[in-house]
Amino acid sequence: MARRTSQEPVPEVVVMRLPLYLRALNHIEDRVDIISSQELGESLQLTPAQIRKDLSYFGKFGKQGRGYNVKTLVQELKHILGLEREWKMVLVGAGRLGRAILDYARFPRSGFKVVAAFDADPSVVGKKVAGVPVLQVSELSATVAREGIAIGIVSVPPPQAQQVIDELVHAGVKAILNYAPLAARVPPGVKLRDIDPVVAAQSMTFYLSQEAAVEEFSPY
Amino acid sequence: MARRTSQEPVPEVVVMRLPLYLRALNHIEDRVDIISSQELGESLQLTPAQIRKDLSYFGKFGKQGRGYNVKTLVQELKHILGLEREWKMVLVGAGRLGRAILDYARFPRSGFKVVAAFDADPSVVGKKVAGVPVLQVSELSATVAREGIAIGIVSVPPPQAQQVIDELVHAGVKAILNYAPLAARVPPGVKLRDIDPVVAAQSMTFYLSQEAAVEEFSPY
Repeated sequence: MARRTSQEPVPEVVVMRLPLYLRALNHIEDRVDIISSQELGESLQLTPAQIRKDLSYFGKFGKQGRGYNVKTLVQELKHILGLEREWKMVLVGAGRLGRAILDYARFPRSGFKVVAAFDADPSVVGKKVAGVPVLQVSELSATVAREGIAIGIVSVPPPQAQQVIDELVHAGVKAILNYAPLAARVPPGVKLRDIDPVVAAQSMTFYLSQEAAVEEFSPY
Repeated sequence: MARRTSQEPVPEVVVMRLPLYLRALNHIEDRVDIISSQELGESLQLTPAQIRKDLSYFGKFGKQGRGYNVKTLVQELKHILGLEREWKMVLVGAGRLGRAILDYARFPRSGFKVVAAFDADPSVVGKKVAGVPVLQVSELSATVAREGIAIGIVSVPPPQAQQVIDELVHAGVKAILNYAPLAARVPPGVKLRDIDPVVAAQSMTFYLSQEAAVEEFSPY
C-alpha cells in the first residue's frame, strides 16, 4: 500500500475528488488494465497534472510514463477512503424521502449499510422498509452508541433536522449526510454533506435566465 | 430591483451560494422582517463580509448598519436566480430512482415542474408517475423542442447516461441535473450538476478512517 509521504494536510477539495476517481475507475476496471493520467483526466475533465498532484498526497502511484494499474489504483483509493470495510449507518426520517433513500441500491453496493431507521410516526415504527427496521426515535441514541455507528442520514423535515443532528452527534456519529434543506451545524470533528437537488437546480437557472436576458436584448 | 453595477463575471462559487441564501431566508421570512449580514452569516456559517461581497455583485442591498429587509432580499434573490417564473423540466429514466425524484415534493414547491418523464421500459410507458406522464424515449427530442424545455433530469443507469445527456443537449436543454453516477460531458454553454450521495458519503469516510487510524496508534 502507498503511504502518506508527508504530513501536509490533504485539502478538502482533493478529498472530494478521490471518490470521483474511484467511481470512474470502477466503471472501467473490468476491461482496462492500465490507464494514463491523461486518459483518466479526460474521463473526469481534469488535467493530468491535477490528478498526479492529488494522488501525490498519498505516496507514489504508477511509474512515470507507464500509467496506473487500474486494479491497484482502485484498491489504493478504497484504502485511502476507508472503503475496505463496511460502514453501518442509521437513517432518521422514514417518510417518503427516507424510504427512497433506503431503497437506493447504490448505498449497500458501495459498502454502506443502513442498519436501522427511525421515525416519529407510530404507524411506520415496527415495520421494515427495504429490509431495514423502523424504530422509535427514542431508541436512536442507544442504538448509535451500542452499534458504534459513525454515519447518520437525516431525512426529516427542516424544523426537526437540527435537533436530530445534535442528537446523532451527541450519540457519537461523526459524519452526517443531510437531505433536510437547511444549513445545519455540526461541531468541529464532525463532517456534514448536504444533498439538495433544488439548490443544485437553482444554481443553474441563474445561467439560464442570464441567457434569456441576452436573447431578449439581441437585435435579431 | 437591484441592477448589476459591473460587468465583472460572477464567480461560480458565488452563484452556488445564492440558493443557500434564499433557502435560509425562506425559512425565516414569515417571522423576521430585517436581518443583519451578521445574523444571516451565522445561520449559514459564513462571515458577514463574505455575504456582503457576494451580494455586491448584484448591486446595493440594504443600508449600511440597517440590515436587509428579508422579503425584499428574497425577491431580489429570486429575480437574480431566475426564479420568478416556473421552469419546466423533463426526466429521463422512470425507474426506482426516477420515481423517487418525481415524488420529491420540493421541486414543484420551488417552481420546477416535470412535464414529462421518459423511459425505455414499455411496461411503464403510457402510465403516470406522481401525476407525470411517462412517454417513449423516442419522443424525447420532439417534446423538449416543442415545449421549449431548458432543464433535464437524468436518472438512467450509467451506461445510458451520456447518450441521454447528448440527446437532451441536442434537443436544446441547457441545464442537466445528473443523478447517474458518472462524470458526464456537456458542451460549453450547458450547465451540469451531479447529485451523488455515495460520492458525498465516501468523501466523509476518508476522515472517519483517519480518525480510526489515530485512535489505533494512540498509546492509551
